[in-house]
Amino acid sequence: MARLATRLTERLGIAHPILSAPMALAGGGALAAAVTRAGGLGLIGGGYGDATWLDQQFAAAGNTQTGCGFITWSMAKRPELLTQALAHKPAVLMLSFGDPRPFATEIAAAGVPLICQCQSLQHVRQGLEAGAAIIVAQGAEAGGHGARRATLPFVPEAADLIARESPQTLLLAAGGIADGRGLAAALMLGADGVLVGTRFWASREALVHERHHAAAVAATGDGTVRSSLPDIARQLDWPKPFDIRVADNAFIAQWAGRDHELKAAIATEATAYREAFMAGDPDKAAVIFGEAAGLIADVPSAGEIVERMVEEAAALLGGAGRFLG
Amino acid sequence: MARLATRLTERLGIAHPILSAPMALAGGGALAAAVTRAGGLGLIGGGYGDATWLDQQFAAAGNTQTGCGFITWSMAKRPELLTQALAHKPAVLMLSFGDPRPFATEIAAAGVPLICQCQSLQHVRQGLEAGAAIIVAQGAEAGGHGARRATLPFVPEAADLIARESPQTLLLAAGGIADGRGLAAALMLGADGVLVGTRFWASREALVHERHHAAAVAATGDGTVRSSLPDIARQLDWPKPFDIRVADNAFIAQWAGRDHELKAAIATEATAYREAFMAGDPDKAAVIFGEAAGLIADVPSAGEIVERMVEEAAALLGGAGRFLG
Ligand SMILES: Cc1cc2nc3c(=O)[nH]c(=O)nc-3n(C[C@H](O)[C@H](O)[C@H](O)COP(=O)(O)O)c2cc1C
Ligand SMILES: Cc1cc2nc3c(=O)[nH]c(=O)nc-3n(C[C@H](O)[C@H](O)[C@H](O)COP(=O)(O)O)c2cc1C
Repeated sequence: MARLATRLTERLGIAHPILSAPMALAGGGALAAAVTRAGGLGLIGGGYGDATWLDQQFAAAGNTQTGCGFITWSMAKRPELLTQALAHKPAVLMLSFGDPRPFATEIAAAGVPLICQCQSLQHVRQGLEAGAAIIVAQGAEAGGHGARRATLPFVPEAADLIARESPQTLLLAAGGIADGRGLAAALMLGADGVLVGTRFWASREALVHERHHAAAVAATGDGTVRSSLPDIARQLDWPKPFDIRVADNAFIAQWAGRDHELKAAIATEATAYREAFMAGDPDKAAVIFGEAAGLIADVPSAGEIVERMVEEAAALLGGAGRFLG
Repeated sequence: MARLATRLTERLGIAHPILSAPMALAGGGALAAAVTRAGGLGLIGGGYGDATWLDQQFAAAGNTQTGCGFITWSMAKRPELLTQALAHKPAVLMLSFGDPRPFATEIAAAGVPLICQCQSLQHVRQGLEAGAAIIVAQGAEAGGHGARRATLPFVPEAADLIARESPQTLLLAAGGIADGRGLAAALMLGADGVLVGTRFWASREALVHERHHAAAVAATGDGTVRSSLPDIARQLDWPKPFDIRVADNAFIAQWAGRDHELKAAIATEATAYREAFMAGDPDKAAVIFGEAAGLIADVPSAGEIVERMVEEAAALLGGAGRFLG
């Protein structure tokens, strides 16, 4: 099998510059370990912070090295979760969606490289102040939470800022990358690697209902939307400027433009939503995937996903000289 | 100087796979001709259709081959503008923002290759039905009008559809591309070339006020927003799903969330807006640029822009083998 070498693979001692995103609920220890075993690095989704679940997922990863990621504003309410995760000696600790600076000292003291996922150039500056070893420039085409920038112009702009202010810091691209074309493009844009969510969400090891998987396979990239409705239904207090990209399904259509009505009916709607989600109903609750769903036609193992991405990117990069006229 | 060869350069007989976007008001004959002379292909912005202006701009391009592009829904109100443009024997005719199919026969009869700029996979299907020689997959990070898809995942998804249904049709990427990194990335994503707006808008030949140029040079990519407000102020009846990406300036802040109030005050506000725009006021009217502004630090000639993009992309593509471990 081909290998792709960048500053990231060198720094982390991995074969391929591919990290799986720490996806709340969907990204457990089995997925993370499978990505690591395939030569990338898998991250466990610390999500909204369930201490028992977190220990279970590190246990599921077994002896395979994985990283862990938190939703910063949520973890900040129970910072003991960070301490708990660091006790597992993760390969990396990723923070996203909130100011990482208050946690930088503890992470550095544990000797764990900090990854800051950023949704704007302003966030990149904050991440550099926090001493991040790795910045992730996340575009709004991403599945799950995010903000407004798009991956293609955001990555090179972040690369320029980092080159000026902190050239030893590495950069990953996230948002819309699901195959070797996206990986090769990210390297051309100046990234040292990629952080991939939706594509690994659609893998056998992900903790995702099969009806949700089927919805993603059937969807084109036109069929997603950014919305606040799923977080209202889940009674999650997401701060601005973040909202979530999900399938543009019947749940979204039912409540579009009616945030206040959903809030008013939340006593009954929250339960209905939770039950529909747990049952894998693809219409009555959100299905969380990004525009990259349009590039997804199957649900293979995570290892196979890594292999396909690497083979395709290697062929493209190896053959790129053909464009020189 | 390096050359970049793709199916596009072969088909159009140009040196580099770079087209300048047909930017309403900003993209006249001087800019288009400069891009063509540098080895790309420049497009005159037919915009909202002023017959006299159109003839003047073709005259300004002189003997240099250029293309022309229309805002489809606007041109559809006065289709004689299309006939007028075709009489100038443009190298290509581009349609964007509306159903291209009613105009395909006339364009084909004139022997002019049709370019359809598309904002969704659904639009790509329409463009293929119209017999487009070239599809442009435009991401929402673009300056000017657009819709919701992002360039990075949209381009490979469009490439897959085209490969299945009409493999001889070419594909360009548009939105967020301002340098050789974006160009090289677009080729990795499966595009045959790029259509570039904001970067050429910030060129000496563009018909843009110097204070607007200064605003773009000062901006980061965080400083833009998609909005309907500029079209309300200009009393332009843009259909859904289109809105415009502009600088996130004082005009936008003043009216944010107050569409109805702007409409109610339009008798006076339309005049104030127009006067501010003509005066180059960067605060009291919209300044039209995309996220790519964050990659722009100067206002060189269009020829220099082409040259830089090609040199940088050629170096990246030529050196891409370094990633093979
Ligand atoms: C189902 C799902 C859940 C996610 N949950 C989280 C999360 O808990 N924390 C986080 O930082 N990012 C989360 N993300 C975003 C990812 O970190 C990443 O930025 C994104 O998936 C990249 O875009 P892509 O989905 O197009 O690959 C999630 C993404 C998905 C698809
Ligand atoms: C100032 C400006 C005016 C534009 N006017 C038009 C137009 O009249 N017709 C059109 O099809 N596209 C128009 N566009 C969009 C371009 O065709 C193109 O999709 C876009 O500029 C590409 O993204 P970029 O700005 O990031 O390069 C305009 C773009 C800008 C920046």
